[in-house]
Amino acid sequence: MSTALLTDRYELTMLDAAIGSGTHERECVFEVFARRLPEGRRYGIVAGTGRLLDAVEQFRFADAELSWLRDNAVVGPAALDWLADYRFSGSISGYREGETYFPGSPLLVVEGTFAEAVILETLILSVLNYDTAVASAAARMVSAAQGRPLAEMGSRRANERAAVAAARAAYIAGFGATSNLEAGRSFGIPTMGTAAHSFTLLHDSEEEAFRAQVAALGPATTLLVDTYDIERGVELAVTVAGTGLGAVRIDSGDLPVQVAAVRAQLDALGATGTRITVTNDLDEFTIAALRAAPVDSYGVGTSVVTGSGHPAAGLVYKLVAHRDSAGEWVSVAKKSAAKATVGGRKWPVRTLDTRGTAVAETIHVGDEPPVGAGRALLVPYIADGVIDDRYRGPEGTALAREHAAFAMDELPADALRLGRGEPAIPTVYA
Amino acid sequence: MSTALLTDRYELTMLDAAIGSGTHERECVFEVFARRLPEGRRYGIVAGTGRLLDAVEQFRFADAELSWLRDNAVVGPAALDWLADYRFSGSISGYREGETYFPGSPLLVVEGTFAEAVILETLILSVLNYDTAVASAAARMVSAAQGRPLAEMGSRRANERAAVAAARAAYIAGFGATSNLEAGRSFGIPTMGTAAHSFTLLHDSEEEAFRAQVAALGPATTLLVDTYDIERGVELAVTVAGTGLGAVRIDSGDLPVQVAAVRAQLDALGATGTRITVTNDLDEFTIAALRAAPVDSYGVGTSVVTGSGHPAAGLVYKLVAHRDSAGEWVSVAKKSAAKATVGGRKWPVRTLDTRGTAVAETIHVGDEPPVGAGRALLVPYIADGVIDDRYRGPEGTALAREHAAFAMDELPADALRLGRGEPAIPTVYA
Repeated sequence: MSTALLTDRYELTMLDAAIGSGTHERECVFEVFARRLPEGRRYGIVAGTGRLLDAVEQFRFADAELSWLRDNAVVGPAALDWLADYRFSGSISGYREGETYFPGSPLLVVEGTFAEAVILETLILSVLNYDTAVASAAARMVSAAQGRPLAEMGSRRANERAAVAAARAAYIAGFGATSNLEAGRSFGIPTMGTAAHSFTLLHDSEEEAFRAQVAALGPATTLLVDTYDIERGVELAVTVAGTGLGAVRIDSGDLPVQVAAVRAQLDALGATGTRITVTNDLDEFTIAALRAAPVDSYGVGTSVVTGSGHPAAGLVYKLVAHRDSAGEWVSVAKKSAAKATVGGRKWPVRTLDTRGTAVAETIHVGDEPPVGAGRALLVPYIADGVIDDRYRGPEGTALAREHAAFAMDELPADALRLGRGEPAIPTVYA
Repeated sequence: MSTALLTDRYELTMLDAAIGSGTHERECVFEVFARRLPEGRRYGIVAGTGRLLDAVEQFRFADAELSWLRDNAVVGPAALDWLADYRFSGSISGYREGETYFPGSPLLVVEGTFAEAVILETLILSVLNYDTAVASAAARMVSAAQGRPLAEMGSRRANERAAVAAARAAYIAGFGATSNLEAGRSFGIPTMGTAAHSFTLLHDSEEEAFRAQVAALGPATTLLVDTYDIERGVELAVTVAGTGLGAVRIDSGDLPVQVAAVRAQLDALGATGTRITVTNDLDEFTIAALRAAPVDSYGVGTSVVTGSGHPAAGLVYKLVAHRDSAGEWVSVAKKSAAKATVGGRKWPVRTLDTRGTAVAETIHVGDEPPVGAGRALLVPYIADGVIDDRYRGPEGTALAREHAAFAMDELPADALRLGRGEPAIPTVYA
């Protein structure tokens, strides 16, 4: 399925005009970065890069796309010919997926001709802005949960295709599973889920529903106990499944109080190994508020797939350098106040103290930094049009999840507090 | 492309268990509704239904899906056999796309066996929750703009596929165009866009960039004038394109002040017909704040594609009635506090006063209301498995846009104020 028209019209009209002025083949460097983190956030987590590699590969203009562009007079004949042959032949490097980032961090560096790089702008930003927003929110939930497992179950609160990306981004940030089956198939993420209230309501009694579920899924299943009355539901659940019942799920009520009562009841019934999972409109703050409660796992929906108040990461895609008419490299930047950018190719490193804790995001401008300047943050994703396959699919997703754990661990301890604050480390231009 | 795995795992485990207990073929009625509107909102706009009809048609389990479900032990052999033959054969009615809605409004009514209706839950909610969130935000921007045209240009701030849905939802709510080319191709929405700052930066001077754009797109194009200095940019734009210049775009700065200065400058230069379009982080409030400024059109990005603070509409999918083991219809409802639902099949009508203004959302429970009780709100979308094609594709999108204008017009005048308030009309159960 082509991704070519998942694009703003102006990318193609710029191509058209640049072909006209003979500037379309000037070598360029574009960078993706955030001017600032979402208000009060102390770090962000990069996500989407692995999906982006697939999307760039599928960015091809076949007859269906070309004829629509022609019929709608979006571009002229020269641009149509150029698009028919399009295949990105430049290079893309960027932060590892799962990496922490800060204001100004160049998450992606795209090098190629103006024409081949500019037309990827919308697609690159769509993928990275959404996935990064979800991963950044998910990471805060993971740290709030202090080691208790989290499952992403917000598919119903996101666009149907965005939901798959959200499941992947949450998994990269440290969630353990998702309810979304396509995310399981496409990216190898563990999937979970047993039953909704409708299943209980369908049956003539709660007992019949529990018996049906245990018959199909075994006593290690999770029974949803709050359709009618939680205390009766828990009692019935243990009666039906036995003390080997895997878990009970609570989806309503005053959770800290409710969870403690259910734990006591389960223990009194001898179901001491039965876990308690809660799923009632959780976010990083309500998860933190449940630290003292005997919760065994969390299911998180709306807040994670909508970035917990920040549904887009605010990443932009800016031209920072190009060759001019004389073939010389020039750094360029937009001058308008509040949206000013730093021109020039960037070489970011993470400056660490002697214990390996991050102390600064050091961005070298123009020239590569000396060896030993810090942990180099860019890895090559596409070299002269050839995609590095290790970073995509299930393998790339697993790699990104490992890296996120490493990168979070490198942050100063107070970076993980949930309260509003400044970026956890300063961005320094060198 | 199959939509079958865009689904939460528990929909399929419920199917599996219901086959086991022999309840999967019980006739059921599920309804989609919002318990409440997003905080402070006075009405919502239904969107996504036309897209949903396509997604339901594509909800088929082919070998690729079945073998993944088998290999991952998601369901047992009986459920796999059942899924292999799946095709929704029930009936779906619902609010017209573009319709206004309120707490409790049954936006979609799904009738079929438990098995065939329950497995659509996730897909239905994903499509409707996102599209409805966008349309509901977009409608507020349209009324804030008081007749001035709006263009949706937020693709880069939404997941790449969600962006297409967002463009469609904003258009239904009254936006006039989108930057998203796929939305143009799939749904017949007018597309727009000319150039970004990178195009100016690429050229050796702003003048060369403007000349290149005018050469390719003609003097009626829109020139972006704020890359360096707005006053010089405007002067140069008129010098290059002549007084027939179509429009200038301003993407930064203190807009009310800036726009007035640019209008005066354009008029002084003789470019009295040149329009001014603004695109700097707009939402319904900043649009309203520009009412006194000589703006000709608005381009809206992030805020519209993220629902302006409410990125999911909060719609739920609930079983409200089913046949029991004796074949009798029973109304069912979840009892837990705060999440209680009203059981029974609903027949909603809009109660109007003598001038045709809406005064109540009257929801008849159980039986159809008498003729003349108000404007009936449900239309049939799928009858015994057969989709009504008028409601999808470009035709359905255009119909939805027309209906949204009609439905907004029916609301009491103060429903359109932007400040926080109660739902514009009360929901009454009859």
